[in-house]
Parts: sequence; C-alpha cells; structure tokens
Amino acid sequence: MNVYLAEFFGTMIIILLGEGAVAGAVLKGTKSENDGWLTIVVAWGLAVTLAVYAVGRISMAHLNPAITLALFLMGDFPKEQVAGYIIAQFAGAFVGAILVWLAFLPHWGRTDSAAKKLAVFCTAPAIRSTPANLLSEILATFVLVLALLFIGANEFAEGLNPLIVGGLIISIGLSLGGTTGFAINPARDLAPRLAHFILPIPGKGSSDWSYSWIPVIGPIIGGILGAWCFKALFV
Amino acid sequence: MNVYLAEFFGTMIIILLGEGAVAGAVLKGTKSENDGWLTIVVAWGLAVTLAVYAVGRISMAHLNPAITLALFLMGDFPKEQVAGYIIAQFAGAFVGAILVWLAFLPHWGRTDSAAKKLAVFCTAPAIRSTPANLLSEILATFVLVLALLFIGANEFAEGLNPLIVGGLIISIGLSLGGTTGFAINPARDLAPRLAHFILPIPGKGSSDWSYSWIPVIGPIIGGILGAWCFKALFV
Amino acid sequence: MNVYLAEFFGTMIIILLGEGAVAGAVLKGTKSENDGWLTIVVAWGLAVTLAVYAVGRISMAHLNPAITLALFLMGDFPKEQVAGYIIAQFAGAFVGAILVWLAFLPHWGRTDSAAKKLAVFCTAPAIRSTPANLLSEILATFVLVLALLFIGANEFAEGLNPLIVGGLIISIGLSLGGTTGFAINPARDLAPRLAHFILPIPGKGSSDWSYSWIPVIGPIIGGILGAWCFKALFV
Amino acid sequence: MNVYLAEFFGTMIIILLGEGAVAGAVLKGTKSENDGWLTIVVAWGLAVTLAVYAVGRISMAHLNPAITLALFLMGDFPKEQVAGYIIAQFAGAFVGAILVWLAFLPHWGRTDSAAKKLAVFCTAPAIRSTPANLLSEILATFVLVLALLFIGANEFAEGLNPLIVGGLIISIGLSLGGTTGFAINPARDLAPRLAHFILPIPGKGSSDWSYSWIPVIGPIIGGILGAWCFKALFV
Repeated sequence: MNVYLAEFFGTMIIILLGEGAVAGAVLKGTKSENDGWLTIVVAWGLAVTLAVYAVGRISMAHLNPAITLALFLMGDFPKEQVAGYIIAQFAGAFVGAILVWLAFLPHWGRTDSAAKKLAVFCTAPAIRSTPANLLSEILATFVLVLALLFIGANEFAEGLNPLIVGGLIISIGLSLGGTTGFAINPARDLAPRLAHFILPIPGKGSSDWSYSWIPVIGPIIGGILGAWCFKALFV
Repeated sequence: MNVYLAEFFGTMIIILLGEGAVAGAVLKGTKSENDGWLTIVVAWGLAVTLAVYAVGRISMAHLNPAITLALFLMGDFPKEQVAGYIIAQFAGAFVGAILVWLAFLPHWGRTDSAAKKLAVFCTAPAIRSTPANLLSEILATFVLVLALLFIGANEFAEGLNPLIVGGLIISIGLSLGGTTGFAINPARDLAPRLAHFILPIPGKGSSDWSYSWIPVIGPIIGGILGAWCFKALFV
Repeated sequence: MNVYLAEFFGTMIIILLGEGAVAGAVLKGTKSENDGWLTIVVAWGLAVTLAVYAVGRISMAHLNPAITLALFLMGDFPKEQVAGYIIAQFAGAFVGAILVWLAFLPHWGRTDSAAKKLAVFCTAPAIRSTPANLLSEILATFVLVLALLFIGANEFAEGLNPLIVGGLIISIGLSLGGTTGFAINPARDLAPRLAHFILPIPGKGSSDWSYSWIPVIGPIIGGILGAWCFKALFV
Repeated sequence: MNVYLAEFFGTMIIILLGEGAVAGAVLKGTKSENDGWLTIVVAWGLAVTLAVYAVGRISMAHLNPAITLALFLMGDFPKEQVAGYIIAQFAGAFVGAILVWLAFLPHWGRTDSAAKKLAVFCTAPAIRSTPANLLSEILATFVLVLALLFIGANEFAEGLNPLIVGGLIISIGLSLGGTTGFAINPARDLAPRLAHFILPIPGKGSSDWSYSWIPVIGPIIGGILGAWCFKALFV
C-alpha cells in the first residue's frame, strides 16, 4: 500500500474513532450519552494508537499536517511528499467525519443543541479569546511534537511506541485540552468542519468559520517550535 | 487442547467477563450498580484481551463467527474447520451467559426492569431503525476486522497484540457502540439471547427476537467487507 | 531475599495499595471520597501488577493462599513451602492493613458509618445469601486461577505478564466483583478483618465474623477447581 | 543533551502535564471542569511515564529530589551531581508551573475559589494535622522508592519500565493520595508554590507557606527509608 493511502486510512480511523466518541457523548439518546471528558480523551488516545499500529510501518504515521510540515522544515522529510501527505490527511479526516455522521444517523434529529452537533466535528474554545486560544493550541502542539521526537529517539521500545503516543495524546488532552478542546492537528479540525458545513444535518447551526483558522495556524506554529526546540537541544 | 475447545473456552470467558460487567452495572443492589458506559466498554475490552492471551496460541482466537467467516471467504481459513469453530463459539457464549446468570442469582429478583435483564444478555438499539441499526453493526464490524488485519500484519509487537486488540474493542465501543451496543459478533448476541429465553429468570420479558437478526447479519456483512477491503488495498 | 519475605512484602503491597484505595473512596473528608467502583477495581489491579513486578522473580508471586494450595494439590509446588508461603501471605496482609489504618489516621473519627470502616478492611456481600455468596467467590476464583494458568502457559510475553495479571484482576472485579466484593484470596480478607478487630478504630462496629469463612473457603474451592480444570484440559 | 538539561525538561513536562490536569479539573469554565480524582491521578501517572520515556536514557530520570538524595545517601549516585540534579528539578518544576498558568490564562479570573487556584500549584492536606500529614507523605514516598528499586531490579521488562512507573504513581495516588494529595516530591510542591507566590494571578490567596515544609521533608524522609529498607532486604 502506498504511503498516501496509508495516511488517508490512518487519519480516517482517527477521526471516525475519535469523533465517534464525541458523538456518543453529546448526541441525544445514545447509550454513552453524557460520557465525561476522560472517556472522550481516552477515545482519542486509543484512536491514535490504533491508527499508528495500523499504518506506522507504511507511512511513519504522521496523520497530522503539523507534524509533516515540522519534519519537512527540519530537513527530516522529503519536499516531494509534503503535499501528498497533507492532502491525504485532509481527505481521510473528511471521510472519517462523514462516516461518523452516517453511524449516528438517527441521533442528529433528536439532538436540539446546534453547538453539540458542531462539537462532534470540530473544536471550539471554552472561553473565546484569540491570543489565549492560539497560545493554547501552540503550547499543546509544541508539547506533542517535542515529546514525540524525544520518545522517537528511544530505540528500546519499538513495539510499544504507538501505545506511548496514545498515552501522550491522553495526557495532553487531560492537561491542556480543557481550554480549546486540543485540535493539535489542522486536518482533524478543518476537514470535519467542512463536512459539517456540507452535510445535511437537521437543525445544524453555523460552522463557526471565524474560529477555524486558530486550530490550523496554532498547531503549525507549535509543531515547528517543538521540532526546532528538539533540534536545538540535541545538536 | 484442540482448537474447538479453545474457541469454546475463549468465547465463554469473553461472555462471562463482558456480560458480567453489564450485570454488575444494571442489576439492582450490586456494588457496581450504575457503573457507566466507560466501565462496561473497558470490561469488554479486557475480556477480549484475556481470552486472546488464553487461547490465541491454540486456535488463533477468532472467538467470533464473523471473523471465522470473513477469513474463510478470503481463503485464509480451511473450510473443514469453519462449522466447528462457529459451533464452539456459540456454545461458549451460551455457557458463559449461564454462568453470568448463576453469578448474579440473588440480583435478578430484585431488579424490576425487564429491559435491563435482557440487556445483560444481548444488545438492543438506542433508537430502533432497521437500516440505521444494520448500518451501525456493519460499520463497527468493518472497522474491527479491517483494523485486526492491519495490526496483525505487524510482526514487531507479537506479545502485545492481545492488548492492542482489547484496545480496539474499547475504542470501537466508545466510538461506535453507543447506537446499538456494538454486538460486532453473532455468537456474543444470539447465544446469550437464547440463554435469556430458556433460563428461569424472575420477571423477565420478551427476548426481542424481532431484533435478533441484525446483530447476526450486520457483523457478518461488516466482517466480509473489512476483510475484502484489506485484501483489495494490499494486493 | 528469601521467598517468604518476598511473599510477605508482595501481599503487604497489595493490601496497602488496594485497601488504601477503598479507604480513600469511603472514608469521610479525603480528596478521593466517593470514587466509584471502577476506581477501586483499577487500584486493586494495579496493586497486584506492582506486587508481581516487585517479587515475581523471587517467589513466583503467589500472594494468595488459594493459589499456593491449588498449585500444591496439583503437584506443582513443594509441600515443604506451603505453610511458609501461607503464613507470609497472612502476615503481609495483616501489616498492610495496619499501614492503611495509619495512613488514614485522622479520617476514621470523621466517618460515621461502621460498615464503611469495615469495608476498608474486608469484603461484605451485596445481598447476604450463603449459597449465592459462596458460589460467587468460587466462580470468581475459578476464573482467576484458570486464566492465570492459561496465560502463564504463554512464553511470548514474559515481561508483560504482571500487567496482564493486573488486567485479569480488574476484569474479574468489574464483572464478578459486584456481588461479594471479590475477595478471591483468603489472606486478603481474613488478615485485615483481624486487624479491624484488634485496632483501636473510633466508632467501629462488628468485624462480621459470621461471614468471614466464605471469602476463605470459597476462594480455596474455586482455586482448586480452576487448577484441576486446567490440568484436565491440557493433559 | 546533558543530564541537567534532561532533568530540567523531564520535571517541566511532569509539572505541565500533571498540574495542567488539576487546572482543567478545578478552574471555572474548562471543558474538563469537575473531572474526578481518578482523572487527575491518571494524568499524573501518564505525565511521569512520558517524562521517563523522554529523558530516562539521558539522566536516568530521577525527576525528584527525594530520589536523588536517597540514591546518593545509599552510595548509588555521585556526590558531584547531586546539587545540579536538584537545582534542575526545581527549575523545571518552576517553569512547568508558569506554563500551566499561561495555558489557562483566561480561566484564572473566572474562578472564585482561592483554594482551588492554589490547588493547581501545590498540595494541601484534606485534614490539617502535622504528624498525620507528615506520616502520609513519608509512607507514600517510602512505597514509591521501595517499589521503584524492586521494579528496577528487574531486567526483563526494560522498555516497559516507564509504563510501570506511571502505574506506580497512579496506584499510590489512588491509594495513599487522598489524604495529602501525594506530593511525594519536594520539587513538585515547593517550586510551583513559589510560582503561585510570584505570578500575577487574579484573586489568589495565601501560598500556605506554613504547610510547605511537609511535602519537602516528608518525601525526603520517606525516600531515604525506602532506599534503606531495600538495601537492608537485599544485602
């Protein structure tokens, strides 16, 4: 399987399993309704672990444009593959979001809150503040990329790495996710937001495009800072 | 130990430990009463992990007719063993359900809700809708089998595989389980439903046979689609 | 370090970390007050995992008279060590219970319920019924020993085994623990009950000696049945 | 990277990810508000696991002055590095606390309770009692160091060790953390307390300096006792 298909499938799995858990927690009438933050965060962590196990050996499992860009800018990823990886990641996230919509088909109409329906697809800040929200996404993605590079420099725990990466997602979610919902990945937020915009969801509201640039730009900045910091420390 | 006995024991363990957790959460007067969705889903995941550790090296731990059928149709499992595996899986699930009934003997009479008593044994949809429920079971089992085959193609993490498979069950449960209760296994649903029908449970209601075909047919379709998709991608 | 000291320390760690979590959940005024069943069960599982990592390579980490007896009766453990192991296990559980009492010293007086104080030390049935309670303890310990022997027959996951054993404890706790509180270990129940009887705990009630034989006899019967069943299946 | 920088970064990660989870749980208006004790404890455990994976191979990941001192006093750590390690640990914890303050910037003003704001930074006892609180911190750190040395004596699970250490933190937190909030690390408590004292946090109250010596002295005593006990048992 080629690397672009792997990135597509990996990102699709993350969005299907991650946003599926949000849907299960916030849509009306599911068996998992009102599941808490821990459950949602654990689901995102498991989704990433499984996606990395599934496609890690094929495409290195970036599954996140912020990681692809950071690695490229540090000289650790070939220029020719950057566009393909990022397109595959966005396409995978988009299809994953459509699958979540399908999986919960009878539940959309029963849910009143337009904000909850949007929350299934993309992040929204707990307190809206451009500098603070941007800082949150930068900091969380900085920790993500710095820690990924630190852990990746280990060689003694290869088969465990996807588990540890999932633990990192859970840790960031529990610790730094409560402010903006930790997008930490432009594809995870923008592509499902587009799906929300296009899909015929009963009673949906705005797709909140005015916020949409923060979970794109913040993770890109944070990812580059994290990779740069790792390089600076180790060279 | 022969492979059929292994499938019997493995499936019995899954049902005893998985349905036991449901019983603990929904029956009246237990110490675990009102445990939430996360607890139930974690219990199912652990049950599968333990069953795979127990019998994986003997029978490959299908423990699910949808997996046996999908592997057979893809040419990866011998025709002569298909019937034996499936019979063993149903028998194991049936005995497991009886053990759950025994373990919670004094609690059945104290529980008023007939729906809760049935929920210990088999799944029921959150919103009853044949196409949507069928789609949910197809999609969840598609993800199960596709991910199992992806992960199985790894060789670097053999001893960890049962843990990862348990994580996959938890992930599917948290993400896609809230709609139909994620049977994703015909034996897990049909055999305990039969046990519910036969056992002398005080105040039990209908065994809801009209729904019973969905958690059988859905997983079979989803499993075949998942195996076919994996083959198509990799060959 | 000799094997008896290892059994003593391992059992002490289990009781300190397991009963500590119960104390944190049920005593008044702790930061963890009202923690649920999942938290308590996870704490017991982690306690066993850590104890097995700590002393497994020294004494094989029985840490449970039901396991020592079952292995001896199956001819897999030398007669000369049986009494020493069991005495060490009871002594470790007794000292562990005293440490829990010390760690929560200011909280005993603030807690009104005598039943909750007793619950820190030993198990009590959700519904009192000698045959049902005995059956629960037999069944849970049967699963414990059968699964331990199955998993132990694996060789491919040695370093993981203590983690899997902890997962087994969590699984049994979530699934079969809600009826009697899953003693599944005579030392875990009887020695701390004795500590409860002796220690100067303000406002403590009866040590419920009339129930005390069930979590001793049940686990012994279940353990022997589990070991016998494993032998019957594999030979 | 040199060992002091590694200790600095590792301790910074622990405090950022651990205290971030406390902030997410106690500050007003976060998505994770009112997360329970289990979530907070799991976050601390994951934070330690990730920090050990990140810097373990560089500096052995003490990340705790009580561990550095105990190892030095037992003759297992060179005198020349003691001061550097401890300074790096305090500096890392201080910077980590500042990052938490930044990450939750808009939430401090919305939170009324001064006690909750302080709880983000440092521990406070559930029931204030100098001897009992000191005993709690001694006992919890004794278990930490004794178990770390026991587990470290294993050689068969190297790549897993950071996971097991995280499990140990979770276990201690669930079992012995409910009384004083388990500092078990002088740097974890004192350096963030200083950050709380200095930072311009709206509506903050006292930094509770009268309690501050207990989570410093207690862990140092407990760590030395744990190391001494291990040596006594094994030599």
